[in-house]
Amino acid sequence: MKKFINSVDTLLDESLNGFAKAHADIVQFNQQPHFVKRATPTRSGKVALISGGGSGHEPLHTGFVGLGMLDAACPGQVFTSPTPDQMLEAAQAVENDGGVLFIVKNYAGDVMNFEIAAEMLECPNATVLVADDVSLPKNHSIGRRGVAGTLVVEKIVGAAAEQGFDLAACKALGDKVSANTASMGLALSSCTVPALGKPTFNLADDEIEMGVGIHGEHGRQTQKLGTATEMVEHLINAIIEDLQPEKNSPVLLHINGFGATPLMELYLVYEIAAEFLHRYGIVVMRSLVGNYTTSLDMAGCSVTVSLMDDELLALWDAPVHTASLRWHC
Amino acid sequence: MKKFINSVDTLLDESLNGFAKAHADIVQFNQQPHFVKRATPTRSGKVALISGGGSGHEPLHTGFVGLGMLDAACPGQVFTSPTPDQMLEAAQAVENDGGVLFIVKNYAGDVMNFEIAAEMLECPNATVLVADDVSLPKNHSIGRRGVAGTLVVEKIVGAAAEQGFDLAACKALGDKVSANTASMGLALSSCTVPALGKPTFNLADDEIEMGVGIHGEHGRQTQKLGTATEMVEHLINAIIEDLQPEKNSPVLLHINGFGATPLMELYLVYEIAAEFLHRYGIVVMRSLVGNYTTSLDMAGCSVTVSLMDDELLALWDAPVHTASLRWHC
Repeated sequence: MKKFINSVDTLLDESLNGFAKAHADIVQFNQQPHFVKRATPTRSGKVALISGGGSGHEPLHTGFVGLGMLDAACPGQVFTSPTPDQMLEAAQAVENDGGVLFIVKNYAGDVMNFEIAAEMLECPNATVLVADDVSLPKNHSIGRRGVAGTLVVEKIVGAAAEQGFDLAACKALGDKVSANTASMGLALSSCTVPALGKPTFNLADDEIEMGVGIHGEHGRQTQKLGTATEMVEHLINAIIEDLQPEKNSPVLLHINGFGATPLMELYLVYEIAAEFLHRYGIVVMRSLVGNYTTSLDMAGCSVTVSLMDDELLALWDAPVHTASLRWHC
Repeated sequence: MKKFINSVDTLLDESLNGFAKAHADIVQFNQQPHFVKRATPTRSGKVALISGGGSGHEPLHTGFVGLGMLDAACPGQVFTSPTPDQMLEAAQAVENDGGVLFIVKNYAGDVMNFEIAAEMLECPNATVLVADDVSLPKNHSIGRRGVAGTLVVEKIVGAAAEQGFDLAACKALGDKVSANTASMGLALSSCTVPALGKPTFNLADDEIEMGVGIHGEHGRQTQKLGTATEMVEHLINAIIEDLQPEKNSPVLLHINGFGATPLMELYLVYEIAAEFLHRYGIVVMRSLVGNYTTSLDMAGCSVTVSLMDDELLALWDAPVHTASLRWHC
């Protein structure tokens, strides 16, 4: 295993300390228990947005704490759910008389621990579950995984909370965005979890994992490497089949790198995906290309399509000032 | 070779088309010859800033075209210098009665072709050469390579040009920033150039390339993989030895990923680098952590330290609105 690492035990703390130091104007890092919160206080009555999950997906979620997006994020160890005490203490630290909305990716451990925290929390609270990975069927036994669409939920609900939407309105909006967002990814290579020290799965030189999860979970199938156009077509078709967008639907198109895929390739994927959507009569109104929901050093990418309307577009465009997403600031 | 690619011949155009489409509010792509320029016109009399170089280092330079930074960028094929006609036509397209400043990384092909373009250009022009890679000695026969410090030059001179500095002042400022910026990097793995189809160089499982260039050039030495702290100390010591900063010097600290290194590790590198600088009595005033000057899919990173003063800090903080660097926008 070749990584910048001193020891598996100190990796997360050293990284979070660096993150907080590099962005001291935006975030503060609480060490016991681990959470990251905004450096500046919010308006009284604002709904507090909290997310979290295993580390190794950076910038998700810590990189999205700040004005117009999250109030706090709870990072677990690498690919490991955070614990209820993290969520509870983060919530108590940022709750400001508007209640708390948890944004949770649909993984058993995350869901359970956020549920425990929600039960222990004494202020009004609600939860939005994100399950945008269409590589699994809608009726899958433990449900679909939450992947790169989580960013879209966090950005749009974050803007709404900043603008004064109350807890019920934020929850309804989050559910709506989540239901209208579909993603699918593929891996060209495995990631290497530091504690394991070797690749999580093996792919031959001419194989890819189609429909992979953001922890390297098995996808729809292991298949032969194709041209970029063939591979992106597969992703787009799965998404379109699931979302069933009407002709002329306005959408956000998000191409997300898993960590080791060059930006040059991600823009090529964007070009192909945008062209396929155009052929389907779908109108790409907003775009986001880059490494946002990563899987450590996995090579590959995912495509996310979110159905938009005027309200959602305005909320997407609203100011955001975080370590990794920043505009109109 | 596992990449998102249709063919080596179309890779660059497909990627640039996607880039321009995803950021149509910021840039326009000219196909014959290749250059990217701002989508919106500038104020008459503003110095036009142009950079360029081989592709494969994205977001450098195309991702830095926009308000407060470059006026145009000329991308060559992967790791191949752009040609004089690209620079000449880009300059003619963006020149606006303020003259043209070329910002050039110190590679023989880039330097020669920008010189030819400068000779052919009929308006006042000047060139800033960036040679920040301290892995080579100051008196190296073909000079030091320009690496991640180029971003710092482009950002600071870009802000100055936006604020009305004239050509001579922009040139002097660029030379000053360049002289006060030092970088060094190391590779954990090779990159794979698409046209070659296999890794450029080989490293054993326990080896790193210390002082590597951004095309995978041989560095100071191939050495054993160390702890993150040992490896970062090596980089910082080389930089400090070269820059010779006075005690309490204010600096910008930039940790740059080469493409395949997770953000989690880059922040860990930042934490260690900041701690070493602190021990040297150096004051980190500004920070930038991420993949900005990449080397396709190479794993590894570089550390850049730029000596700052009040003027440079204000220019660094000035508004910038490009595809990949954006604040106070």
